[in-house]
Amino acid sequence: MLMKNKLISELKQYLSKSNILETLEERYAYAQDASNSREVVNLPDVVVFVESVEQIQSVVKLANKYKMPVVCRGAGTNVVGACRCEHGGILLNFSKMNRILEINPENMTATVEAGVILGDLQKEVDKIGLFYPPDPSNLAVSTIGGSVAQNSGGAKSFKYGTTKDYVLDMKVVMADGSILRTGSSTIKNSTGYNLNTLFVGSEGTLGIVAEVTLKLIPKPEAKKVFMAYFDTVKDAVLAVNSLIEQRIYPATIDFMDKNAIKTVEEFYPANLLTDKEAALVIEIDGFECSMDYQERIIVGVLSECRASAIQASHNDEEYEKIWKARRSSMGACAKIKPNVTTDDVIVSREKLPELVLGIREICSRYSLKVCMVGHVGDGSVHPQIPIDYSDEDEYSRYKRAKVEIYNLTGQLGGILSGEHGIGADKRDYIDKVVNSVSLDCMRQIKKTFDSNNILNPYKIF
Amino acid sequence: MLMKNKLISELKQYLSKSNILETLEERYAYAQDASNSREVVNLPDVVVFVESVEQIQSVVKLANKYKMPVVCRGAGTNVVGACRCEHGGILLNFSKMNRILEINPENMTATVEAGVILGDLQKEVDKIGLFYPPDPSNLAVSTIGGSVAQNSGGAKSFKYGTTKDYVLDMKVVMADGSILRTGSSTIKNSTGYNLNTLFVGSEGTLGIVAEVTLKLIPKPEAKKVFMAYFDTVKDAVLAVNSLIEQRIYPATIDFMDKNAIKTVEEFYPANLLTDKEAALVIEIDGFECSMDYQERIIVGVLSECRASAIQASHNDEEYEKIWKARRSSMGACAKIKPNVTTDDVIVSREKLPELVLGIREICSRYSLKVCMVGHVGDGSVHPQIPIDYSDEDEYSRYKRAKVEIYNLTGQLGGILSGEHGIGADKRDYIDKVVNSVSLDCMRQIKKTFDSNNILNPYKIF
Repeated sequence: MLMKNKLISELKQYLSKSNILETLEERYAYAQDASNSREVVNLPDVVVFVESVEQIQSVVKLANKYKMPVVCRGAGTNVVGACRCEHGGILLNFSKMNRILEINPENMTATVEAGVILGDLQKEVDKIGLFYPPDPSNLAVSTIGGSVAQNSGGAKSFKYGTTKDYVLDMKVVMADGSILRTGSSTIKNSTGYNLNTLFVGSEGTLGIVAEVTLKLIPKPEAKKVFMAYFDTVKDAVLAVNSLIEQRIYPATIDFMDKNAIKTVEEFYPANLLTDKEAALVIEIDGFECSMDYQERIIVGVLSECRASAIQASHNDEEYEKIWKARRSSMGACAKIKPNVTTDDVIVSREKLPELVLGIREICSRYSLKVCMVGHVGDGSVHPQIPIDYSDEDEYSRYKRAKVEIYNLTGQLGGILSGEHGIGADKRDYIDKVVNSVSLDCMRQIKKTFDSNNILNPYKIF
Repeated sequence: MLMKNKLISELKQYLSKSNILETLEERYAYAQDASNSREVVNLPDVVVFVESVEQIQSVVKLANKYKMPVVCRGAGTNVVGACRCEHGGILLNFSKMNRILEINPENMTATVEAGVILGDLQKEVDKIGLFYPPDPSNLAVSTIGGSVAQNSGGAKSFKYGTTKDYVLDMKVVMADGSILRTGSSTIKNSTGYNLNTLFVGSEGTLGIVAEVTLKLIPKPEAKKVFMAYFDTVKDAVLAVNSLIEQRIYPATIDFMDKNAIKTVEEFYPANLLTDKEAALVIEIDGFECSMDYQERIIVGVLSECRASAIQASHNDEEYEKIWKARRSSMGACAKIKPNVTTDDVIVSREKLPELVLGIREICSRYSLKVCMVGHVGDGSVHPQIPIDYSDEDEYSRYKRAKVEIYNLTGQLGGILSGEHGIGADKRDYIDKVVNSVSLDCMRQIKKTFDSNNILNPYKIF
């Protein structure tokens, strides 16, 4: 307690009073992230808002001096507890470091502070015909720093990859307060080890990302989205392969299962066909002149693959309507019961039917409802399970089902996260899918970079 | 010497006699790689051909026991000395580990042994309508293992990225002989630190890559290449920006300067226009139905940007002819003098005219001829300097010019390699472009993974 008071009093030398929150209420407000875990919850000892790289350095140096944890938070949208201060310490809030520092159209790069909202950046670069593809469904509020920490993907990962594919350079504050540059503003780099992607996805455990230089690409001229329904999950997945055989490379191949379709339609009516077993949401993009051609191929292939109905967007309104339906799944699930959990498991695409049907069987066995959406092109599934945390029996069934889902994923050669990260909530299961040599290497890197274990300690492993 | 003999005698327990080369002539044959450096040259103590992961493990365990360096070699096409046994030791040859283990069209992945020839893999996946984009110009002979070690790029990096963007998983033999898996066969991964890209580009210094699982993408339906001439380098670069403003995203935007054009035309006549200051080689791809549209835009933009002549490929023969011209630059340079050196520097694209003109000025000042080709879309330049190694004065001028080129690159915010790596030949200069905190981190990782410093020691830094 004495140490905590000394730390806070020293923090005041570097940060203005309004950027330091100390009351119980304030600390409580920052105890949770979007994981809304029922477990926990420890509070941060203090919440600080940083406004510059120098301030981050000062905070980290003090944290190192007092051996206090530092946990970063952008918008707090993380769903695996990566932003929770499980061991107290400093909650470092990036919401005031939200400046777009440079957009360079000649080099097709943008340099931003870590607290910039992802959607804000996308809108800015869109204005000059450029495109930053990663699009987690919370992009209207989530930050670049968070997406870097978790290596966020989104609906367009199938064609355009994830955050790691766009990070060229970062200014990272290391545990001792020094500044590390991870790369350069060039779009290729074979000059030493790739530090960019070592830090991307490291969930704030190796260093604190303060500024990021991102690669941008030319914006496709046109886009269109289709919704196709199938009577079996397997048919839906097979249709994806058939599309690729025709050299169609959709930006998105997303997926909704029967429960997700029904739940969305119940709460956000969008004329979805609720009697179908599965739906694909397929977005194509490219030159305007190729859209009719792509549509013809897609409709042909999907029909051959036994799609029982195909809806297409013919204008912006219809485009938004289909996307709203796909993205409303989590919100709709939240209306069924007081709580909803989401997860993120991923397998090779050909294993997806087994995974989806297996998850359904597991949940059924534990008397849990599950709505599944996901990025079928990537092989990724987000099972969303509405539950009531106050129902001890249900919660216990949920916990057991979760472990079985992870076991199944591991048996199918998959992994426990394609885009959300591991954080606190999945840390106990990572050894189901990552071998011990790899985990040892990760732990050694962590120890080398952060010997006092102050940076988001005990996350990932 | 005794130690060496003991090592070789132990090696014979694990490898057949024909896979162990010990004679001076044999060792000499493997002393150099394509860097053809005039410096050096130490010989490997022994050359071994491995045929399985288990054999690699045995070799590495022995190397660790006897503290002998292990240097990997695929086809030996490395141009920075990364395959040279500067400190003796074991030259581990991958040319017999060249099996394509699996091509999985459903998951769009290929798993190969590290010694597979890159071009062979491309041909195999092409047969089923898939595409592995990285295309270093030596792809007909170079191996996947080498391209992973150096994070190879090639002409198509502008649109399709480099090797790191395609590696999903690897089986890596660590310094203690244990097997590390770097990822999984899924196309997204946020499950712990990204070990894939830590090993890609690490030039064999952290572990020995035995098997690689690569992401494939659907093969574009059609392609076409253009050659456009300009009266200034700056005009050529500005034309690239104008293309992007029109939302054209070429697969390739390559570059040849006046000397490269002239030299190629002299030795491999291809009707190039030798009175021009610069040429762009632009390849577009995509749906057949978009090709005319793209061509119209490109020809329009290039004309507006003062291109003084534009040649286009109308069939496979013309396509190959233009590419042959672009790729013949190094071979043509080699006909001018007994030796030719190539390099690899890269800057933000808008800095490229300064870099190209600066390199020309430096070489002129040192009375050196320089032919420049490069990937202008990426901001990368390969200065090719024909010299005579036996001419002491010329060699000394070359060495001084090289340092000035690196200084200039650093001043422009660039880095010393976009796709070749640092190896032995550029290791003394890496601190010109990578800051000390980053270099320290790299060194710490190296020490953590390879405490006896046996894996390609003293390369990179």
